[in-house]
Amino acid sequence: MKNILIIGAGKSSSSLIKYLLDKSGSENLQLTIGDISTKNALKLINNHKNAKAIIFDVFDKNQRKKQVQKAAIVISMLPASLHIEIAKDCITFNKNLVTASYISDEMNALDEAAKKKGLVFMNEIGVDPGIDHMSAMKVIDTIRAKGAKMLLFESFTGGLVAPESDNNLWNYKFTWNPRNVVLAGQGGAAMFIQEGTYKYIPYHKLFRRTEFLKINENGIFEAYANRDSLKYRSIYGLDSIPTMYRGTIRKIGFSRAWNIFVQLGMTDDSYTIEDSENLSYRDYINLFLAYSPSDSVELKLRSYLKIDQDDVMWAKLEELDLFNPKKKVGLKNATPAQILQKILEDSWTLQENDKDMIVMQHLFGYEIDAKKYQIESSLVVLGENQTYTAMAKTVGLPVAIAALKILKGEIKTPGVQRPITKEIYEPILQELENYGIKFTEKEVPYLGYNPNHVIG
Amino acid sequence: MKNILIIGAGKSSSSLIKYLLDKSGSENLQLTIGDISTKNALKLINNHKNAKAIIFDVFDKNQRKKQVQKAAIVISMLPASLHIEIAKDCITFNKNLVTASYISDEMNALDEAAKKKGLVFMNEIGVDPGIDHMSAMKVIDTIRAKGAKMLLFESFTGGLVAPESDNNLWNYKFTWNPRNVVLAGQGGAAMFIQEGTYKYIPYHKLFRRTEFLKINENGIFEAYANRDSLKYRSIYGLDSIPTMYRGTIRKIGFSRAWNIFVQLGMTDDSYTIEDSENLSYRDYINLFLAYSPSDSVELKLRSYLKIDQDDVMWAKLEELDLFNPKKKVGLKNATPAQILQKILEDSWTLQENDKDMIVMQHLFGYEIDAKKYQIESSLVVLGENQTYTAMAKTVGLPVAIAALKILKGEIKTPGVQRPITKEIYEPILQELENYGIKFTEKEVPYLGYNPNHVIG
Repeated sequence: MKNILIIGAGKSSSSLIKYLLDKSGSENLQLTIGDISTKNALKLINNHKNAKAIIFDVFDKNQRKKQVQKAAIVISMLPASLHIEIAKDCITFNKNLVTASYISDEMNALDEAAKKKGLVFMNEIGVDPGIDHMSAMKVIDTIRAKGAKMLLFESFTGGLVAPESDNNLWNYKFTWNPRNVVLAGQGGAAMFIQEGTYKYIPYHKLFRRTEFLKINENGIFEAYANRDSLKYRSIYGLDSIPTMYRGTIRKIGFSRAWNIFVQLGMTDDSYTIEDSENLSYRDYINLFLAYSPSDSVELKLRSYLKIDQDDVMWAKLEELDLFNPKKKVGLKNATPAQILQKILEDSWTLQENDKDMIVMQHLFGYEIDAKKYQIESSLVVLGENQTYTAMAKTVGLPVAIAALKILKGEIKTPGVQRPITKEIYEPILQELENYGIKFTEKEVPYLGYNPNHVIG
Repeated sequence: MKNILIIGAGKSSSSLIKYLLDKSGSENLQLTIGDISTKNALKLINNHKNAKAIIFDVFDKNQRKKQVQKAAIVISMLPASLHIEIAKDCITFNKNLVTASYISDEMNALDEAAKKKGLVFMNEIGVDPGIDHMSAMKVIDTIRAKGAKMLLFESFTGGLVAPESDNNLWNYKFTWNPRNVVLAGQGGAAMFIQEGTYKYIPYHKLFRRTEFLKINENGIFEAYANRDSLKYRSIYGLDSIPTMYRGTIRKIGFSRAWNIFVQLGMTDDSYTIEDSENLSYRDYINLFLAYSPSDSVELKLRSYLKIDQDDVMWAKLEELDLFNPKKKVGLKNATPAQILQKILEDSWTLQENDKDMIVMQHLFGYEIDAKKYQIESSLVVLGENQTYTAMAKTVGLPVAIAALKILKGEIKTPGVQRPITKEIYEPILQELENYGIKFTEKEVPYLGYNPNHVIG
């Protein structure tokens, strides 16, 4: 029996664990699933004989080393910042490692050591990053093989609520870490290049600079720019491409309303509010509005941000119960962002029967024999229920497939890496199709980057 | 002869050096003026027999220790971040120290050591911080001595161009470090309290939340909020005051136009622009505007920020030559803020005959015997010329006066401190009056904080 150590049994681990359990008989696998509590792990194992749940504290050095040492391969599903000590243990004990997180500088620094020991440290192999890399590189490599020149690459991903569960005015619910949603876009200007011109968008304008995109029969969506699209030029080998843009998908109208929170300063996570615990939701809004001895919070807000009486954004705010003078924040020494998250969680938490949805779209523009072409590649994945969500499937299945292939020696190029080579993306994308994760590709007229025609 | 070591002979040191040279005969003083180049120091000394200029590198540990050891007292006019090693040497060699900078955490950590050795480490004794502390505490102490309760403290300071040299549309020129002007307001939300309500303004809204104030016969000005007004409650002993606000003064209309740069993202100092050196001023603006194959930079900007055709803000931008396609940025790997600074320096540098102006206003509200009162205390100081600017006078004279009084044992309470006690502010404010730095105080009807009546 080959022992696979899975660290972290949170929301993103369900499909990962199911995949490996389903293969455990034929592939001779034993899963050890560690988390700070065994509750969720036990639920996911559901008495399967080839898995056990253990209480696992990543900060307990001895336990961590012991478990890594006993594993044939390690999968870390912890938050990105917690991988590094596990990765170092994997170096020490000669274990391969798989994570779905962006490669941090510390992780990257282990590249040489991993190569020296012939270890595969596969990262960024969830959905975004992950499936986006693989599906994009597959098309880019095909275009390159024709001898064509890449002119444009745009890539959009969103974790949304499925249409059948889409029943609030924001057309949004939390399908992953709410904190990341509240802080999205912070930490520096968004940067990209369009038709050879560099563009930089500061955070406070990000949600007013959305672009539109149509995803087959699924309708029109909007996208705001991700933080650094420029660095993907070298990662994808597209250093001289004139248009490179990565964005996050939302339903139409979300970003314009979210911008209200940004403008007010409610997404700020850098300072704590005085006496935050005892504020009402209404007091909380008023912190960001000018003082008045008599005017209402409502009128001050409408006037400050110029929200017309008939603007649906106002109904979106009311739906969140933001103006309630009785509901208390109840969080001590909280930042504006922490309070906003709490208010949103009242309204945007996925309910028992709610389903989520992952949408992704890539646009590829290229030139060959003085003719220009464009390919549109799209993916829509719906969740099955609250456990086997689209998010869990698209994050967990590539991780699981990669881990098993590394274990079996089918993926073996060593080093700290992401799935951008054919050796990796081809078999994984192939297998993902069996689980309904399948891109539809079509050729469309070449548009280049033209903001007047982005809706195809 | 008592040797005074003055470190830093920049723009703020002229009046400081003149004051001490004028007293050097009667007070038996010898000045040692150290800077990385002796050029400016020699000009300021102008062959006076009681001073010498030395090349001084604050990072040269041996030289620094040697000079501190030889001094009777040390004055550091370096940027705030460079005081700390000098301060540690002052502890080592038992020397008193004077700076005009905000007390840093590192400086504050020396408090106990300074007290143990009986040393005076006087900081925040320039204009802002400095004269603002002293003039405010003088009135606050008087009000308290009456047994009154403080209801309101608002304090505003600005370094501006004098009316006779005010000849651009922005009504502004750089009278101190341009970099600090470009970055002003960054680093966190502005926070204050008005009539018992906490208020927080994010950076991107700061320059649209200005308040107006009238300074005697000098006209109406505007002010934007300083970063943390709340901490001054405990410093000034006003912990339960319902209104506490500190702001920066500009001529009317400056902030609304400055907001254009903030909205575009031009004041961002956190990342560098690709190929910044070869951009034209026009290209630089275009970095922050949406791509278009045909529309002009002008129209894109007007549309994006909703600038009407008849808005004077537009003329302000044109005055800066911002749309010039031929003028090159010429700075390698520059941040947006560095490029903006360069463009502004083309237009806003003080000319040979330009004069500057310091304006300050405090408002004090208090209650005694169930009646409410308000005092308005204002200061306007004009510069003499490019060397003896209002900025140099108001920063340098309090430093010089304090240094001499510490040297003579007239100020002797030890520790790391700011000038908020009567022992310090009373004689210094008294002497500053001889140099034309004199507040006018008047009683006005009590208004409290009322945004509809801030123009008195």
